[in-house]
Amino acid sequence: MNSIFADLETTVFETMSELARRHEAINLGQGFPDDPGPLDVREAAARAVIEGSNQYPPMLGLPSLREAVAQHYAEHQGIKLDPVTEVMVTSGATEALAASLLALIEPGDEVVLFEPLYDAYLPLVRRAGGLPRLVTLAPPEWRFDRAMLERAFSPRTRVVVLNSPLNPAGSIISAEELALLAEFAERHDAVVIADEVWEHVTFDGRRHRSVLQVEGLRERAVKIGSAGKIFSLTGWKVGLVAAAPSLLKAVSRAHQFLTFTTPPNLQAAVAYGLLKDHAFFDDQRRRLQARRDRFADGLRALGLAALPCHATYFLNLDIGPLGADDDRLFCRDLVERHGLAAIPVSAFYAEGRMRHVVRFCFAKDEALLDAALERLGRLR
Amino acid sequence: MNSIFADLETTVFETMSELARRHEAINLGQGFPDDPGPLDVREAAARAVIEGSNQYPPMLGLPSLREAVAQHYAEHQGIKLDPVTEVMVTSGATEALAASLLALIEPGDEVVLFEPLYDAYLPLVRRAGGLPRLVTLAPPEWRFDRAMLERAFSPRTRVVVLNSPLNPAGSIISAEELALLAEFAERHDAVVIADEVWEHVTFDGRRHRSVLQVEGLRERAVKIGSAGKIFSLTGWKVGLVAAAPSLLKAVSRAHQFLTFTTPPNLQAAVAYGLLKDHAFFDDQRRRLQARRDRFADGLRALGLAALPCHATYFLNLDIGPLGADDDRLFCRDLVERHGLAAIPVSAFYAEGRMRHVVRFCFAKDEALLDAALERLGRLR
Ligand SMILES: CSCCC(=O)C(=O)O
Ligand SMILES: CSCCC(=O)C(=O)O
Repeated sequence: MNSIFADLETTVFETMSELARRHEAINLGQGFPDDPGPLDVREAAARAVIEGSNQYPPMLGLPSLREAVAQHYAEHQGIKLDPVTEVMVTSGATEALAASLLALIEPGDEVVLFEPLYDAYLPLVRRAGGLPRLVTLAPPEWRFDRAMLERAFSPRTRVVVLNSPLNPAGSIISAEELALLAEFAERHDAVVIADEVWEHVTFDGRRHRSVLQVEGLRERAVKIGSAGKIFSLTGWKVGLVAAAPSLLKAVSRAHQFLTFTTPPNLQAAVAYGLLKDHAFFDDQRRRLQARRDRFADGLRALGLAALPCHATYFLNLDIGPLGADDDRLFCRDLVERHGLAAIPVSAFYAEGRMRHVVRFCFAKDEALLDAALERLGRLR
Repeated sequence: MNSIFADLETTVFETMSELARRHEAINLGQGFPDDPGPLDVREAAARAVIEGSNQYPPMLGLPSLREAVAQHYAEHQGIKLDPVTEVMVTSGATEALAASLLALIEPGDEVVLFEPLYDAYLPLVRRAGGLPRLVTLAPPEWRFDRAMLERAFSPRTRVVVLNSPLNPAGSIISAEELALLAEFAERHDAVVIADEVWEHVTFDGRRHRSVLQVEGLRERAVKIGSAGKIFSLTGWKVGLVAAAPSLLKAVSRAHQFLTFTTPPNLQAAVAYGLLKDHAFFDDQRRRLQARRDRFADGLRALGLAALPCHATYFLNLDIGPLGADDDRLFCRDLVERHGLAAIPVSAFYAEGRMRHVVRFCFAKDEALLDAALERLGRLR
């Protein structure tokens, strides 16, 4: 049995959702929206299941989807991609990440990552034979600087894993940080794997900037997107990969043996969805922003101040003012005794640091958010 | 860049399908049926996309599907499974195989495999850190014996990968071979990963026997099935894993970071499909058998004798009598000059042995099979 995976727990998201089901709690833990997702996109999928092909699509993805991805990123982020050599479809962003790490890491390579980090990153890096080097970010701004990169990079650095907008922080990497990262990646001839699944979920007029828009990174970065996050259909597991041809080819070598391909009916619907007009994406942002505001305002009314949130589905709460100093105990108590599931942010830190912050998913119906607030109020 | 994946070619199935598209050839290469798959199962999926949840299902799969899997294998193969602790859903059988290998191999472990083997096996074993030990099977019977296992197993053997019914051979492992395998696996305390995706596609009254039905293997085997193959919906990528609780748990650790989960709408439809009555599965077998017979008869009429075929979508032809001695050249010529795509069987051998056999997929419309035969006739 493999020692890296054998020692792992079930992912915290699954555990909390399971606890939420068991305690019939309000689930603001795992990051999924509770609205059903756009009907026209779902109808496109239903049609494709009945009228389209249900056999293997090409390994890199349906040509129509790869063209839609190129057009979408050209329009929304000003990135020029060749749909034939620079775009690939995977079975979710998780598979894209796994394929990238397995394809790009040679055992013994050092891999620079930023914590807080999504819980899949470290086990995948280790299983691929990489040696993680962590840069630790902290609230409220979650920023890094030159000195922090100097400490993390070495002559053996080959890969960098970046997540922006950052889950769970809700922050967006700054232009200065991106420039620094480009400088270090170029100097060390490292590849940047960028998990940009929250690219559309940004607030207050702020916009995501992709690694592929950055001078010096365009040719050495693998951009990962997620149709599930773009369309609030998290179960669809349609991941979008964009990278320069030689990088994309390398990643596709791993992809072809991890899942080989992704359901063509869902791919067809995503192709349709990505070409919807900008109003659709603006409207999604606006609706999510209103929910963020409602939840943040509600917390404030309880005398609790959420940390800043510029992106993602998540608001973070410093639990210190509540007299708590262990986010895991706090979350367990919250779900078991108060019927509200959240995620302890220490789960996003390699050594379980950062034990005073708890993450709530606000991509939910307003009545549910109000009910959650009401339960939080009982903690005071 | 990882050296194992960097050296790989695009999979032969993808390459041949691409050549078939380019030359507008009849594609009897990649193994997919050309009928649209059962309408009621597709309708169940379409309904779930519109009326059901499109958010993350549980990491192990929808409870309804896991129960259906247990019931299905109880009825069809007499296997008793606990749906909660012994069944998992993956994004296709390929993901199930990748997760099993990454979870069960510790770098340096020896892994016994039988060639011909599906082209994903060796790169995945190597990327997981395993050392492949090959048992070479040959037509027309593709059997192994005690002496062959003695040569392949060693004190370092930890994992065995078995595929039965065997692609491309179209053979089914015998009861004696299964007993031998159980004896060796027990003696070496090895786990058997069994790719049983062709379990329903058997002919002439022959039946598949699962590793989980074998004394001595029930507790040390991971059984992998494929809804895509069961329902002739190869693009759906819904894989089915069954194993004793501790093994299943280990494999789920890798699964949760490879794809995490699989579209719930397709899972719901597969749950419905697995509980269809036996007539459906018998009827599918009958229809495929009729196609096998039509193609085999057609070959015979051309003076060409197909190798025996008891299962799968595939018939193999010895190209020696056609004066050919290089299956890759033969296939390239066949697709480019005669407009017919097939798969060179040497692609299923580690060192490209077995250069005189070519594989044809007969899961096609009868008119297409006739047209393919007509093109083959021109070779004489
Ligand atoms: C794969 S479940 C986790 C979903 C998610 O992105 C989150 O909750 O952070
Ligand atoms: C993943 S494409 C290969 C399909 C198949 O099972 C085969 O052709 O052998």
